[in-house]
Amino acid sequence: MAVISLLTDFGLKDEYVGLMKGVILSVNPAAKIVDLSHEISPQDIVKAAYMLNASYKFFPPKTIHIAVVDPGVGSVRDILAVKADGYFFVAPDNGLLTHILRYASIESVYKVQNRSYFYHPTSSTFHGRDIMAPVAAHLSLGVSIQKFGIPADLNTLTLLGNMEPKTEPGGRLSGMVVSVDRFGNLITNIDYQHLISILEISVGQKLTIIVGNTRIDELSETYSDKPHAHPVALIGSRGFLEISINEGNASKTLQVKPGDKVMVESR
Amino acid sequence: MAVISLLTDFGLKDEYVGLMKGVILSVNPAAKIVDLSHEISPQDIVKAAYMLNASYKFFPPKTIHIAVVDPGVGSVRDILAVKADGYFFVAPDNGLLTHILRYASIESVYKVQNRSYFYHPTSSTFHGRDIMAPVAAHLSLGVSIQKFGIPADLNTLTLLGNMEPKTEPGGRLSGMVVSVDRFGNLITNIDYQHLISILEISVGQKLTIIVGNTRIDELSETYSDKPHAHPVALIGSRGFLEISINEGNASKTLQVKPGDKVMVESR
Amino acid sequence: MAVISLLTDFGLKDEYVGLMKGVILSVNPAAKIVDLSHEISPQDIVKAAYMLNASYKFFPPKTIHIAVVDPGVGSVRDILAVKADGYFFVAPDNGLLTHILRYASIESVYKVQNRSYFYHPTSSTFHGRDIMAPVAAHLSLGVSIQKFGIPADLNTLTLLGNMEPKTEPGGRLSGMVVSVDRFGNLITNIDYQHLISILEISVGQKLTIIVGNTRIDELSETYSDKPHAHPVALIGSRGFLEISINEGNASKTLQVKPGDKVMVESR
Repeated sequence: MAVISLLTDFGLKDEYVGLMKGVILSVNPAAKIVDLSHEISPQDIVKAAYMLNASYKFFPPKTIHIAVVDPGVGSVRDILAVKADGYFFVAPDNGLLTHILRYASIESVYKVQNRSYFYHPTSSTFHGRDIMAPVAAHLSLGVSIQKFGIPADLNTLTLLGNMEPKTEPGGRLSGMVVSVDRFGNLITNIDYQHLISILEISVGQKLTIIVGNTRIDELSETYSDKPHAHPVALIGSRGFLEISINEGNASKTLQVKPGDKVMVESR
Repeated sequence: MAVISLLTDFGLKDEYVGLMKGVILSVNPAAKIVDLSHEISPQDIVKAAYMLNASYKFFPPKTIHIAVVDPGVGSVRDILAVKADGYFFVAPDNGLLTHILRYASIESVYKVQNRSYFYHPTSSTFHGRDIMAPVAAHLSLGVSIQKFGIPADLNTLTLLGNMEPKTEPGGRLSGMVVSVDRFGNLITNIDYQHLISILEISVGQKLTIIVGNTRIDELSETYSDKPHAHPVALIGSRGFLEISINEGNASKTLQVKPGDKVMVESR
Repeated sequence: MAVISLLTDFGLKDEYVGLMKGVILSVNPAAKIVDLSHEISPQDIVKAAYMLNASYKFFPPKTIHIAVVDPGVGSVRDILAVKADGYFFVAPDNGLLTHILRYASIESVYKVQNRSYFYHPTSSTFHGRDIMAPVAAHLSLGVSIQKFGIPADLNTLTLLGNMEPKTEPGGRLSGMVVSVDRFGNLITNIDYQHLISILEISVGQKLTIIVGNTRIDELSETYSDKPHAHPVALIGSRGFLEISINEGNASKTLQVKPGDKVMVESR
């Protein structure tokens, strides 16, 4: 029972996601297909890369994760098939797999080139349907990853920069809000290890988190640790620092949006 | 082939629903997962309770319905596993199961406490993924419901008030609009039995339905029983009184929204 | 492993799509259900007809495609069960199947009337759940199509008009934008055969495409054939002429919307 997950910027208004599923089931009628999200803003590779990294381990081993945010579709960019951490990934070589390629335990990385696994006729504008869907479906049938193309040189693959928080002189950590969820929670790129490292580098024993005009002097366990309408900083379900408002919307109340700076310092 | 349905306020923009499915399939790869809705307004327990009640019987017997609208996540509120009417329910003890606990034929109600069925590490902010999803998945594998925790005292569970229409002095029935669907149909909490009871209590043989500034003097069979753009009152597909505009949007045209009063009287 | 696809105007806010799936799985627990789209604008039969036609062949043979855009629900309009091109279709007789009935290779067309395959009690307002879902589910179990009702007279079925582009005097082709996708791409009803026919009828060897105030003098292979922010005309993934802006939104930039005219002439 192979699982295939889909992460795209296609939205659900058009038929695009449905067609990918139709093509997958045409190759492997037993595939279990799960939508991770299709509401990535059009062409927002950065947000999709963070989401994929935060999500892939919650699926069964050998799940095939397809990620299609693909502004370069039809141009010369490659499509990659990757095995890492016991999972498969199929995505354009445009930075979507930045975290996987940097931090996961990589078993194989191939450039997808074998047209015998493509949908025919193969369009120039919808490789999600015509290449990535059938390649993932064949992977789910157990076709060996090296059948799909040629090994890729890891040093030539596209990696996104500025994904990690930076330690400033004096030990202050400078990260950013990478996502605002439906509840207005501000999800950052600062994880627990980063926070620990601050305490080790700099003076105090306690942390101050600064986002927009708001200072939070404490790391909480859960939303309700603070009174109604108060800002809360906690390690969220992604495993990263989140800033929330208990029973409120942090993004609206604190006027903070994706891309905004988040700083952490000890005191 | 166990079916698991999901009803949440997570939306589809974030990865949250996808992660619940990943966790479910990690436990039971054969589970069939169906989305009931994820577009409940954030924290709207009342609307979710009505929707769950209107929906659960349309699924195969033994379907496990997970409902996650959970403003108290991480606080002391319990999570319940319930068997009633031949279905299973997994939800926080916050009123989501009000109709089930009040009217369904209850077989068992347990407080979920057995951490060996949880996802680990268990977050404090996403019990949908870390507790309710894996508990439902284990239920779908046939694990006996008493394995998940301790029996709950029915008298201590959270039930929402003011869910039912009331009979006013003189026999007039006073209910409310609980939902406006995509087509602008006004869905009420008044069912056919309530309407019958009005005719029995009060004088006339015919009903008048009053919503906002609109009076409707007749119960119709279907939308097209009235001419284009006319208000229609009928027993909708939920089994409850609905007010619609034939080929139009009743909510916009009649300026009525969820929470607004609906009255029925005989004449 | 039968596949059932769903195309509706129900949206995902309400429980309607989930209930159709619950009913399908109650009849055939092994059915694989795929969402084509539920975001058709309420009652937009024309757009759904185009989408269904563009999509059905990407699914495995024998897939059962349910289409529910059904302003006449509960009135006298028929519900059809069709076998064509090796696929099944279940839809109201209101034009949704226009392309299938006109161009596909038709094996059988039945009016659905056999109430023993309906959900009971059968509502007057939700035939998607109570008739089309269980009929499709029984088809997926292998029940023969003639069991569901009586043969339909093809000449009496509802077909939409003005779906095809027209050749104007002088050989100019006049079509329209039938859909704007999430990326702002303008999808037309003009396919490759239509374009070829223009070149045969009229003078020049090259094509000019005119949409709104924009003229495009070339047919490209893919988006990136033109520089950033330039309009591109190409045969899109639907197999029809599309007008896009490389890395931009053609609908917004060119101020063109569904229903707007698209003209093609040779020069």
